[in-house]
Amino acid sequence: MANTQSPLSGTEVGTTGPVLIIGAGLLGASLGMRLSKLGVPVFLRDIYPVVSALACDMGAGSTWEENSPEPALVVVATPPDVAADQVIAALKEFPDAIVTDVASVKSVILAEVAEAGADLSRYVGCHPMAGRERSGTAFAREDLFESRPWVIVPNEKTVAGAVLAMRSLALDVGSLPLQLEAETHDQSVALVSHVPQLVSSLLAAQLARAMPESLGLAGQGLRDTTRIASSDPALWAAIIAGNAEHVAKMLRGFADDMQQVLHALEHPGAAIPSPSLVGAVTLAMRQGNLGVARIPGKHGGAPRRYQEIMVKVPDEAGTLGRLFQAVGETGINIEDLELEHSPGAAFGIARLAIEPNSAASLAEKLEIKGWEIVAS
Amino acid sequence: MANTQSPLSGTEVGTTGPVLIIGAGLLGASLGMRLSKLGVPVFLRDIYPVVSALACDMGAGSTWEENSPEPALVVVATPPDVAADQVIAALKEFPDAIVTDVASVKSVILAEVAEAGADLSRYVGCHPMAGRERSGTAFAREDLFESRPWVIVPNEKTVAGAVLAMRSLALDVGSLPLQLEAETHDQSVALVSHVPQLVSSLLAAQLARAMPESLGLAGQGLRDTTRIASSDPALWAAIIAGNAEHVAKMLRGFADDMQQVLHALEHPGAAIPSPSLVGAVTLAMRQGNLGVARIPGKHGGAPRRYQEIMVKVPDEAGTLGRLFQAVGETGINIEDLELEHSPGAAFGIARLAIEPNSAASLAEKLEIKGWEIVAS
Repeated sequence: MANTQSPLSGTEVGTTGPVLIIGAGLLGASLGMRLSKLGVPVFLRDIYPVVSALACDMGAGSTWEENSPEPALVVVATPPDVAADQVIAALKEFPDAIVTDVASVKSVILAEVAEAGADLSRYVGCHPMAGRERSGTAFAREDLFESRPWVIVPNEKTVAGAVLAMRSLALDVGSLPLQLEAETHDQSVALVSHVPQLVSSLLAAQLARAMPESLGLAGQGLRDTTRIASSDPALWAAIIAGNAEHVAKMLRGFADDMQQVLHALEHPGAAIPSPSLVGAVTLAMRQGNLGVARIPGKHGGAPRRYQEIMVKVPDEAGTLGRLFQAVGETGINIEDLELEHSPGAAFGIARLAIEPNSAASLAEKLEIKGWEIVAS
Repeated sequence: MANTQSPLSGTEVGTTGPVLIIGAGLLGASLGMRLSKLGVPVFLRDIYPVVSALACDMGAGSTWEENSPEPALVVVATPPDVAADQVIAALKEFPDAIVTDVASVKSVILAEVAEAGADLSRYVGCHPMAGRERSGTAFAREDLFESRPWVIVPNEKTVAGAVLAMRSLALDVGSLPLQLEAETHDQSVALVSHVPQLVSSLLAAQLARAMPESLGLAGQGLRDTTRIASSDPALWAAIIAGNAEHVAKMLRGFADDMQQVLHALEHPGAAIPSPSLVGAVTLAMRQGNLGVARIPGKHGGAPRRYQEIMVKVPDEAGTLGRLFQAVGETGINIEDLELEHSPGAAFGIARLAIEPNSAASLAEKLEIKGWEIVAS
């Protein structure tokens, strides 16, 4: 039973091993790496032996064998479309273990596990919000879960001990645990993750048949809105299929709103510019202003309220280094940064987000050091 | 006549003054600041005297008066819905001047100018691709146009000298001039700018009525896709109304593609997961993969082919400075950077984009200096 001092953080490790991780992809391998580093005994099982072997080589644990010790916790980290079957099998195979899964959809898995008559008291779903544009064991890293939300989704029969074990697991890997019901979780991720993914992909898809000269006019706005369109289609198809009902409802809301704008665009009326068209676009954009302002900032809870300082950065080796060294010397912290650039640019603009009451002071200090502030 | 050495760049200034800028907002004031710095005599006229006074205070030129010298070039930098009227009036008022406008839609303005029977030989449209999420004189800066595409849109009657004057103007302000027909321009910006803006706003609008607990699960993907949703509704309503036909066509293409996915989501069939649903999502996402790969990178022309190095960055003052100083000391240039963070995070991940043949060397050098590379 591992309940030792953590060599990583110096705090107590709460997770009780041995832990069996089923599925050694990005999430499973990353979890194994972190728990192994904490001293928890971890075993891995994957339908592809080469995958679990790679994960073990990367420090994620040992390959599961017939005579491996009985796990106290089983984590199913397979793709979402096979997670329910694996949870059901694990609840049967290990009658004393707590069983969880880390799939990004929860209701459909819970329904299947319940329907199979499996022991729901030992099952508790999880969703560590720690995906990346890339998937696969090779991209695993022990700090994948660090500071990410880790959603715990108990069912009506889940025992309190299983929920507590999930809180310990989340805290051990550096995540921020929070508890939601399966339906609330699925509705939330449809809104903040699945629908944005589909919309970004569909938007980028329009570029596939564009004239090359059109793409030459692309700016940062297009790059930002389509960045996640480079995500893995197979993985996302499984996620979205597993949350079809909520995604359908949210995407229908989006489509209905878009239909208002589209109707106004296609029936502009006689006047130029059409008052109804201007009204429809303005209304949609105002709602967008309100919506984007509700997204929590870096430290959660409240929307971002940082002030922005823009500094001109010539495109030369070491320039950014000198800039951030200069910032560091002021002792003022950068809350966020972004480098803005354009095709063929000889320099970029570094956008530094700063606490409002430090911004003027930082701008002044940087200007004294010879940096050009282009707006603040 | 200004044709002097540039105090900014040391190269010859091509723009022949005096220049009259009509509309002293973000674009007009920024243009005035840059041209004034180059030694070109600039005059400003705005329907709000306080606006032109502010622009003049910021170094954008002098307020236009009855006895000001006859302009050789008139730049209409008003909102797009009043640009045509201003162009028509300027062509009449100054019968020897070249007249341009900087509105982000071109066909509708050209059509109105032609319909008014104005002198098309002296009119040439422009579109400097240099907008920001913010508008207004107060955000003007002399380097707003630096390294941005500057689209020149002549009509059939435009004299060669007027096109050359626009090339000079674009080069003088540091932009990258390119020439497009009005229809091609409008179709291109509908695709790479206007439709992404509407889609981002409509997506963010869905958040306006979301449960607070849903927003707590927001990640970087949502932040990126909705960033431009904070743009100015009034300005964008005028832009989109001025390009309604092309925006309607492009948005209809998006809506039709989305309808396929939506239909599959709403009619998943008996099997779970539904093969038709998985197929529809996979197809849309693959098209998205192809589309996003066509967006040109930092230096234009070809898509990005950088390798990414991820470095762990504790959330402390000066850490980024030390990191970039370390990078600078290696002499290896950073092509792009992004700071990835989460609510409540004690550290972030700095994603550095590097030329592929320098990436391994940089990662090694950073690790020797004690930085933790979390993936490469």
